[in-house]
Amino acid sequence: MSYFITLEGGEGSGKTTALAKLAERLVADGFEVVTTREPGGIEIAEKIREVILDRSHTAMDARTEALLYAAARRQHLVERVLPALQAGKIVLCDRFVDSSLAYQGHARGLGLDDVLAINEFAIEGHMPELTLYFDVNPKTGLARIDLDQGREFNRLDEESLAFHYKVREGYLLLLGRYPERMQLINAENELDEVVSDAYEALQRFLAEKK
Amino acid sequence: MSYFITLEGGEGSGKTTALAKLAERLVADGFEVVTTREPGGIEIAEKIREVILDRSHTAMDARTEALLYAAARRQHLVERVLPALQAGKIVLCDRFVDSSLAYQGHARGLGLDDVLAINEFAIEGHMPELTLYFDVNPKTGLARIDLDQGREFNRLDEESLAFHYKVREGYLLLLGRYPERMQLINAENELDEVVSDAYEALQRFLAEKK
Repeated sequence: MSYFITLEGGEGSGKTTALAKLAERLVADGFEVVTTREPGGIEIAEKIREVILDRSHTAMDARTEALLYAAARRQHLVERVLPALQAGKIVLCDRFVDSSLAYQGHARGLGLDDVLAINEFAIEGHMPELTLYFDVNPKTGLARIDLDQGREFNRLDEESLAFHYKVREGYLLLLGRYPERMQLINAENELDEVVSDAYEALQRFLAEKK
Repeated sequence: MSYFITLEGGEGSGKTTALAKLAERLVADGFEVVTTREPGGIEIAEKIREVILDRSHTAMDARTEALLYAAARRQHLVERVLPALQAGKIVLCDRFVDSSLAYQGHARGLGLDDVLAINEFAIEGHMPELTLYFDVNPKTGLARIDLDQGREFNRLDEESLAFHYKVREGYLLLLGRYPERMQLINAENELDEVVSDAYEALQRFLAEKK
């Protein structure tokens, strides 16, 4: 009865809000659920994240960064995800390997296969059994974030927007590569509809596993 | 005229002392030489090393550690080694990929190929052209360290000694795998002899490259 499920998507896709609502529904259905995201309060993973996010580190190489994400992922997996799975819980994790593949592998140009290789070392076969990919046009997603922050959609230069289009392209490539594991959720819709589509996908997955 | 040369070996093999003496001789021969070792004062690499060495991090997973070493290696390579090579220097580096392969890959049991994979991601083809492996029996090497610290050889329990034998075994496997690149230096000898053997190996390498 333990399942490892990840939620993926670009900025403003609504996945983080949806994750909390999906967890509520699963709990109401009687499941034991753990929600998490890296670094998730795991001390070593938090320390690694601090190195990644330190704004004085302007010289950080993209490969260094990808290795650090993989290191934080490993520690979070070992300390948070695996114990929850071993205790028979459903683990809903906000971003996992696919984020590194879409952002670093595809959008930053390091290559899907190379970034996958270091992540395979990190996760030792513990791929999620289901990944809900919240697909949204970057213009829609980024406008949502601006709206949340009380701004018009205007902050992005074309370069930044182009990067987010590459991220989406990366996710769509992954969807083609992992059609069994990844389910596309149309995140252009209103949040309620997005959540109920994601919940339906979860229900189908759980029903198949019964 | 730029060459990337690494020195490898177990504890007490004398490689660090030898490195300084080899650099002196090469400089006397008219070469421009940069000596370094990870993290080498590179800020991001130093920060990563701090995470690795933090004694409060007793829960650090071996794979997390291997990924962190690879991340620090990447940043040190990009900021220190490659600029020196591009400036036409000989770079003498105290430990590099082979240390991760011997210690984490073989002695810690993560597997040579898996640890090589993450290091290949980190170094992007920049393998050393010559590696001097200072081979010493762990009992000799560890006794030297104790002697330096004014102690009899007595501090090691069998488990720790067994680990250092595994490290040596790892290095010997690498020697079989990379016979062109790796040269064995008998580090059981007195330091002067070790240094002159290493210097001769360097001379042969440089003569072949002419």
